[in-house]
Amino acid sequence: MDENVVIYLVSDSSIDTAEHVAAIAASRFGANISQIKKFPYVGDKNQIDEIAIDASNNKNSLIIHTMVVDELKKHLLKKAQQFNLRIVDVMGPIMDAIEGTTGIPPSDLFFPKRKLDEDYFKKMDAIEFAVKHDDGKDANGILLADVVILGVSRTSKTPLCMYLAHKYIKAANFPLVPEVDPPRELFEIDHNRIFGLMINIDNLVEIRKERLKSLGLDSKAVYAAKDRIIKELNYAKEVMQRLDCTVIDVTNKAVEETASIILNKINKGGL
Amino acid sequence: MDENVVIYLVSDSSIDTAEHVAAIAASRFGANISQIKKFPYVGDKNQIDEIAIDASNNKNSLIIHTMVVDELKKHLLKKAQQFNLRIVDVMGPIMDAIEGTTGIPPSDLFFPKRKLDEDYFKKMDAIEFAVKHDDGKDANGILLADVVILGVSRTSKTPLCMYLAHKYIKAANFPLVPEVDPPRELFEIDHNRIFGLMINIDNLVEIRKERLKSLGLDSKAVYAAKDRIIKELNYAKEVMQRLDCTVIDVTNKAVEETASIILNKINKGGL
Repeated sequence: MDENVVIYLVSDSSIDTAEHVAAIAASRFGANISQIKKFPYVGDKNQIDEIAIDASNNKNSLIIHTMVVDELKKHLLKKAQQFNLRIVDVMGPIMDAIEGTTGIPPSDLFFPKRKLDEDYFKKMDAIEFAVKHDDGKDANGILLADVVILGVSRTSKTPLCMYLAHKYIKAANFPLVPEVDPPRELFEIDHNRIFGLMINIDNLVEIRKERLKSLGLDSKAVYAAKDRIIKELNYAKEVMQRLDCTVIDVTNKAVEETASIILNKINKGGL
Repeated sequence: MDENVVIYLVSDSSIDTAEHVAAIAASRFGANISQIKKFPYVGDKNQIDEIAIDASNNKNSLIIHTMVVDELKKHLLKKAQQFNLRIVDVMGPIMDAIEGTTGIPPSDLFFPKRKLDEDYFKKMDAIEFAVKHDDGKDANGILLADVVILGVSRTSKTPLCMYLAHKYIKAANFPLVPEVDPPRELFEIDHNRIFGLMINIDNLVEIRKERLKSLGLDSKAVYAAKDRIIKELNYAKEVMQRLDCTVIDVTNKAVEETASIILNKINKGGL
């Protein structure tokens, strides 16, 4: 039995969902997945035919699809049967479960376009907000933001704010450095909207050394020196205490995980 | 039969995948989904018990889960059976299909941590790069970027670059305005790395009017005037022709869709 699988991700819209699912599968099967081929925005039957022919040329193909347009979905299933291809429908079981509960079949229409547009522009705005108020660029952002993120350098403030923007949250971030006083705006807003990021000292030493290396700089610079990092973290802790903000330990946490803590907290707080 | 479903999203890691799936389902069932409750990073059996009890209090609950830790997954299934709850396993069919093809059961271990870390920091770097080189902030970014995005105001350059960053692509963006000469760096790089965004005139008029409104400004400002927009778009077109870059019409396209065109093109080009 050949142990290598070629995964085909097929969707009539974005393949983000299929990609997420394939990434989780790959994390458990690792080396046995030799290739992932991506086919987003598949819009006609000819494209489906080409994908099926391509997949039939591989000994171990697996098609993972998130098709929702009925005609295209049916054509894909027909082709898979014709070429004897293994195929998994990511959305099918969920759609069936909802239909089974409500007794109502899914609409052929999508969610009202208006709502989608609103969400879309809300997300774009939140992303632009995060970019504009990254790295303490504009203290005014503190007053306008849904949440403000504080932390020393290399605590993933920027990626965190971007991730929050994808969840429609306007996030501004502000770096903490012992040599610069925190802006007074921080003391004017509700402390429940402020989140301070802390991190284990040794981890931060390693992260900063890697950063210096990737920039082609000497990893012995003061930026990555343990003494300096202890001083910075102590200062950051002291500022966070003065602000009485929520402190999150981000050591070994993925950005999604930190974001999830923040989202839970502000949802409960009704922000 | 009660037509309203409460969806429970449960995962032992991020619920992004479950959320994607729920969003697609919601787009077909719309009003029949009355609430979506989210439980990311579920790490112990007590939490699962609480979720099951909560779900059993709703008449029409549906649990959508992406659990991969075997012990937790089994406990969730046991609880669902006990309370007679409808439950959908997003990952199960895919894991089974891969196992069926390879004859190899999934590993209890995740993908080597090292690889995950590398991907993680690569993504963080790409996001920081996009933020740093947003909106023509630094012409040097043009030389360092994997791709450069050009377009007039409100063609979604920033969100596009952020989305590309999530796909590990370092993208810089540069606004085109008739009054400012495009930086010479644009003419020094491979034109296959440059992408120009174009948009339908009337759509852009509407988008800019909305923008002005959302900023509390008069929507009759020159920024949203048709004459001005025609002038800007003509100028942009002319610059794109001089650069001989790929031009993408973003009218009514989602950012993911535009990104997908770019990713296909640079993957083929072997960038």
